[in-house]
Amino acid sequence: MRKNYLLTPGPTPLPPEVCQALGRPIIHHRTPQFQAILKEATEGLKYVFQTESDVFILTSSGTGAMEAAVVNLLSAKDAALTVESGKFGERWTELCNGYGILADVIKVEWGKAVEPAEIEKRLKANPNIKAVFTTLCETSTGVATDIEAIGKIVAKYNAVLVVDAISGLGAIDLKTDAWGVDVCVSGSQKGFMLPPGLAFISVSKKAWDMIAVSKSPRYYFDLTVARKAIQKTDTPFTPAISLVIALVEVLRMMKQDGLENIFKRHHTMASATKAAMKALGLELFAPTASSDVVTAVKVPAGIDGEKLVKTMRDAYGVTIAGGQAELKGKVFRFAHMGFIEEFDIIAGIACLEKVLKELGYSFELGAGVKAAEEVFLKK
Amino acid sequence: MRKNYLLTPGPTPLPPEVCQALGRPIIHHRTPQFQAILKEATEGLKYVFQTESDVFILTSSGTGAMEAAVVNLLSAKDAALTVESGKFGERWTELCNGYGILADVIKVEWGKAVEPAEIEKRLKANPNIKAVFTTLCETSTGVATDIEAIGKIVAKYNAVLVVDAISGLGAIDLKTDAWGVDVCVSGSQKGFMLPPGLAFISVSKKAWDMIAVSKSPRYYFDLTVARKAIQKTDTPFTPAISLVIALVEVLRMMKQDGLENIFKRHHTMASATKAAMKALGLELFAPTASSDVVTAVKVPAGIDGEKLVKTMRDAYGVTIAGGQAELKGKVFRFAHMGFIEEFDIIAGIACLEKVLKELGYSFELGAGVKAAEEVFLKK
Repeated sequence: MRKNYLLTPGPTPLPPEVCQALGRPIIHHRTPQFQAILKEATEGLKYVFQTESDVFILTSSGTGAMEAAVVNLLSAKDAALTVESGKFGERWTELCNGYGILADVIKVEWGKAVEPAEIEKRLKANPNIKAVFTTLCETSTGVATDIEAIGKIVAKYNAVLVVDAISGLGAIDLKTDAWGVDVCVSGSQKGFMLPPGLAFISVSKKAWDMIAVSKSPRYYFDLTVARKAIQKTDTPFTPAISLVIALVEVLRMMKQDGLENIFKRHHTMASATKAAMKALGLELFAPTASSDVVTAVKVPAGIDGEKLVKTMRDAYGVTIAGGQAELKGKVFRFAHMGFIEEFDIIAGIACLEKVLKELGYSFELGAGVKAAEEVFLKK
Repeated sequence: MRKNYLLTPGPTPLPPEVCQALGRPIIHHRTPQFQAILKEATEGLKYVFQTESDVFILTSSGTGAMEAAVVNLLSAKDAALTVESGKFGERWTELCNGYGILADVIKVEWGKAVEPAEIEKRLKANPNIKAVFTTLCETSTGVATDIEAIGKIVAKYNAVLVVDAISGLGAIDLKTDAWGVDVCVSGSQKGFMLPPGLAFISVSKKAWDMIAVSKSPRYYFDLTVARKAIQKTDTPFTPAISLVIALVEVLRMMKQDGLENIFKRHHTMASATKAAMKALGLELFAPTASSDVVTAVKVPAGIDGEKLVKTMRDAYGVTIAGGQAELKGKVFRFAHMGFIEEFDIIAGIACLEKVLKELGYSFELGAGVKAAEEVFLKK
């Protein structure tokens, strides 16, 4: 007998309602029945995105929607500003490079958040910059970006603000309209508690004006075609029907809980996790800017970080994530996002304690769990 | 109480094994457990594609893999040949146009198949043509293309042969390697009996040589990156995990049945359907080139074709497809593909008879069902 706990920053565990919806017989997508589902899903996404703008459902990984943002907004030789504070920020630069867009890159030390003032400095220095590409929560480091502050700056310029909110939307606050986010990109397998396979993208008026004149080649990710289709409650290409049906289920759950309560739950779980790590004598990788989505923790001296993650997963069924790229073996990432609640966090910390003990790390057994319990009790 | 029958050319009904697999708790994609699944899925796809070449799983609709074929093989200003014998053939031309590729278009009357000799004529006339884009089964008309004959021709030239086999692969024969198909594209929701959301693409040695020098911008659909990833049993971006897990289930079923038996079953169902239509006094839209995947039938004079499809679906739960684009209201399309067997066909024909009677069409009740039964009894 083995129970599995998934505490990774995507995919996150599926609510039973989602499993049941995915297991239903399929229906055809060009029917009134599916049109009602597509309509409800699109409206529900607007609630989570906190926007009145169009939100489109794409059949792709989140990266597909990132590509959609780049190719619909910009043309080759256009100037853009990208923020790299981890693996996913780098993806914006790679996408710009791939389409001949001239990316001015702000390199931020991994574990730190970009200074909004640096963005203003670059925008002032180069008035040709047409788009600023940022990341809500950098999954590779756990760091959250101050999108609200950046939005206030970008609004003063001709540039649009694009946010990769794949990790974080529906888990931490992002007010698309109020904060001036022109294009917000997300995916199904994180805050939305679905399997991967769907991406979402919102488009503001300012962004549509830019799309109208952009010349990058595009077909599958052409948002102008998607816009025409959704006006007839349709999609340009066959959508991932089962995932859209399950999306309606989670959107109903999210609406019932309310965004404020969802954000509070994530904040409490993050606080409990961070308290537990400190109580175990572990050091947070990003102590000042760590998000409520995932916590990156430094692997203590003398412990094999990859072995820690593998043992938790293969011996005890608790999956957390290791470090990516330059952080491989140096950090582990403990996610607290999606269909996860306090006793999952307690179970995850207990497993971490067990394996740390087995690997010879010295600490008082139970200290982490107790610290987490204290946080949960207070809230 | 209402039972639903899905007799549309995609999505096709899901086997219960697929429904169950989709409803399982999710697992993380960067684990040995998922790697084993990805490996089995990739090997199984090679069996269905009848190829020794690489086959990649993309998270997108089939159109995404069509775009992957175009942008990986060709550069702007390259010459290509596209065959348009329906809505999906036109998509190849649109994709080429979108990426600045110069498409020489063979326009074939809807309901007819392209003459292979015409392809040879065009290749001779323009030695710059680098790729020939065709369609295995044109879903909008039900017509099958003679890919084997075209493959023999294209093999003599420097061009690669690309086949949109989204509709048809795993239902009718396509020998990727033996017929000289360089790039074969398919999707999950037809012969593969899964929900939509995955696309598949095979790449021959001749195609890789062309990819090595092509310059079209690409990122999400970059096959060179996918190739590097699969060598480490990985995907470049988060895959649609649940669909890949369900894919393994159908591939096991398909291997157990054997391709020959699967093709025979589809041929018998197609023959029974066509016999039934004739017995009802209905005319096939493509009497000479109709595929074993879907049968397009002319709506008889005096009958409202859209009402026929709607009544079957909304009053009796049997979903067939209407005509697309220029065929809207003029044909209906009765699919016999995927997880469908003889008694589904009988049910579908009985429902068609019932609604035709209600709409005032004159024929002997039961004649269609009897003709189909005769075909099934003989085989």
